[in-house]
Amino acid sequence: MADVTILTERDLRALVPLDAAAVTCVEQAFAALATQNVEMPPILRLDIADANGEVDVKTAYVPGIDSFAIKISPGFFDNPKIGLPSVNGLMVVLSAKTGILEAALFDNGYLTDVRTAAAGAVAAKYLARADAETAGILGAGVQARLQLKALMLVRPIKSAQIWARDAAKAERAAEELSRELSIAVRAVTSAKAAVHDADVVVTTTPSREPVLQAGWLSPGQHVTAMGSDAEHKNEIDPAVFSRLNHYVPDRLGQTKVLGELHHAIEAGAVRKDAAFTELGEIVAGKVAGRREDDEITLADLTGTGVQDTAIATLARQRATSAGAGQIFSS
Amino acid sequence: MADVTILTERDLRALVPLDAAAVTCVEQAFAALATQNVEMPPILRLDIADANGEVDVKTAYVPGIDSFAIKISPGFFDNPKIGLPSVNGLMVVLSAKTGILEAALFDNGYLTDVRTAAAGAVAAKYLARADAETAGILGAGVQARLQLKALMLVRPIKSAQIWARDAAKAERAAEELSRELSIAVRAVTSAKAAVHDADVVVTTTPSREPVLQAGWLSPGQHVTAMGSDAEHKNEIDPAVFSRLNHYVPDRLGQTKVLGELHHAIEAGAVRKDAAFTELGEIVAGKVAGRREDDEITLADLTGTGVQDTAIATLARQRATSAGAGQIFSS
Repeated sequence: MADVTILTERDLRALVPLDAAAVTCVEQAFAALATQNVEMPPILRLDIADANGEVDVKTAYVPGIDSFAIKISPGFFDNPKIGLPSVNGLMVVLSAKTGILEAALFDNGYLTDVRTAAAGAVAAKYLARADAETAGILGAGVQARLQLKALMLVRPIKSAQIWARDAAKAERAAEELSRELSIAVRAVTSAKAAVHDADVVVTTTPSREPVLQAGWLSPGQHVTAMGSDAEHKNEIDPAVFSRLNHYVPDRLGQTKVLGELHHAIEAGAVRKDAAFTELGEIVAGKVAGRREDDEITLADLTGTGVQDTAIATLARQRATSAGAGQIFSS
Repeated sequence: MADVTILTERDLRALVPLDAAAVTCVEQAFAALATQNVEMPPILRLDIADANGEVDVKTAYVPGIDSFAIKISPGFFDNPKIGLPSVNGLMVVLSAKTGILEAALFDNGYLTDVRTAAAGAVAAKYLARADAETAGILGAGVQARLQLKALMLVRPIKSAQIWARDAAKAERAAEELSRELSIAVRAVTSAKAAVHDADVVVTTTPSREPVLQAGWLSPGQHVTAMGSDAEHKNEIDPAVFSRLNHYVPDRLGQTKVLGELHHAIEAGAVRKDAAFTELGEIVAGKVAGRREDDEITLADLTGTGVQDTAIATLARQRATSAGAGQIFSS
C-alpha cells in the first residue's frame, strides 16, 4: 500500500502556469536529452479507427530526476461534434528508484499544453533573432494562443498576425489575445499574410497538407512547426527545406518518422541519412543556434517524453510545497 | 471535467477474485483476439538500469468493448532488499468512444496477477488432458500459487508438486497451498521431480536459463510457460520444442521476441518463419487444441493487452454494480 497524490486539472492550472519557470524546466529537459543517458523509448500508439481516435503514450527516464512520468494522450477527433474536447489525457508519476506509483495527474492534457508551448519558447530562444518583434501564428486553437504567450517570455514581441482556416476563429483569437497579452494581435485572411514580415512564425495546425510555402519565407525568419505529431500530419512544404540555414528537430529519430522532416524525406527534398543537430544539443551549448541575423531557421517539434517527465516533476514539487492535491492510499 | 472512478487494490481484490468468471473473461479476450479486429500495439518498454528496473506499458482496443485499459507494469528487482514488492503498477481505463478517462485502478499489479493466472487456466482448458489430476509447479511466488488455484478451476487436480530454487520457499508454499486449496501439495527438491508424472506443468520463474529440460517430459503432458515476458527470460530448454506435438503462443508476434519461442529460434531449434496457432484461435474453435491423450503440448504466455482490457472492464462493471470506489472530478 502506497500513498498516491492525486492532482486535478484545476490544481495543476494553479500550480504550473505557462511562465518563465516552465520554460526553464523544459529547457533543462532538452539539455538533459543531449547530455545525459536518457532512456526514451519510442512512442506507444494505439489507433481506434472506429471512433476516429488515437492514443499516444510517452515516457522518459532522466538520470538525476528521482521520478519519471508516463503520459497518456488520447486524441478523439469527433469529440467536438458532441461538445467534448478532442484532446485530453493524464500523466502518472512513478518513482525511478522503486517503480512505485507516486502521483496521478488528471490534467486533461493541460500539462502537455504547457510543456509544448514551453518547447516553442525554447526553440525561439535559441533560433529566433534576439530582436524579434513580430509573430506570425498559423492556427487559432489552444496551442496558437499558448505559443504566442510563450514567445513573449523569450522575445520582445510587440505584435502578432494570426491566420486560421476558420476566419471567425482567427478573429476571436486575435481579439482575446490582444486583450490578454496587451499587444496588437490582428487576424489576417491568408497564411501567407501571417508569415509575411513576421520575425517568428509558429505553425500550430493539425493540417495534413502543407500550410507554409517556401516562397513566403524571407531572410532572418525563424519558424517553429509544432502541429505535426503523427505520420499523416504535415504543415511545412518540403521545398521549404532548401531555403533553411538550420533545421533543428526536437528528436531526430522522431521527426524522421512523425515530423515535418518525414515529409521532406518522402518528397526527396532531404536525404534520409542527413544529420541534424537536435534542439537539446544547442541548449546544452554543444552547437550554436542562430549564427547570423539573415539565416532562416526551422524547429520541428514532435513532443518528447523528457518534457513530460520534467513538467510532471515540477508539478509534483510544487504540489508538495503547497500541500496541494489529495492523498490516496492505493 | 469528467468523473473518474478510483479503485484501490483492496476494492479490486474484493471485486475480482480469481474464479471461473475471471477465467471466462480472459477466455473471451483470447477469442476476440482471434476473431475481431483487435488493435494491440507492441509493448512500450522503459529500462531503468540504474535501479535494476523496467516498466512495460500494454494496451489493446477490442471492438465491442466500450472502454480500453492501458496498463503500466513496473518491475524493480532490487525492491525486495528494501522490503518492497518487485512488481506493482496500475491500470487506467479510457472510453473507446471519446478517449475520456473513466477509471484509475490502483491495483499494485493485482489485476495482472489474476489475468495472468486466468490465462494459464484457459491454456490448460484447451490443451491439458481432460482427466489431468497432478500439477507440477516450478517457482514458488505469487504466480506459482495462483496458477495452481487457476488450474483447479478447469481440471480435476487432486495433487501438486512444487519446486523452487529456494527450498524453504517451496516448503512454505506447499504447506499454505495444501491448506488453502484442500489438496495434497508437496515440495520437491528438483525441477525434474516436479515435472515427473505431472499431467500439467506450469513454469512461473523469472529464470534466465532453462529450468525445464526436454528429457524430463513424457507423453500426455501439458506445459504452460508463463515466466518469460522479457527478452532475457528463458524457462524452457530449446530442445523441448522437438518433443512438442503442439506449441501454442498467446501472441506469436510477441513470443518470437519475448517468449520461449524466441530462445528456441535463437538456438536454431525452430525456424524463424515457422507458423503456429495462437491460443485465441483454439478458443475461438478455428483450430483444435489437444487432439490425443499422448500429445505433449506447450503454451507460451507472454501476456497480452486484451487480457488487461478484459479484466479492467470486468472490474469496472462490478464496481459500478456494487457502487464501489471513489468518484473524483478531474
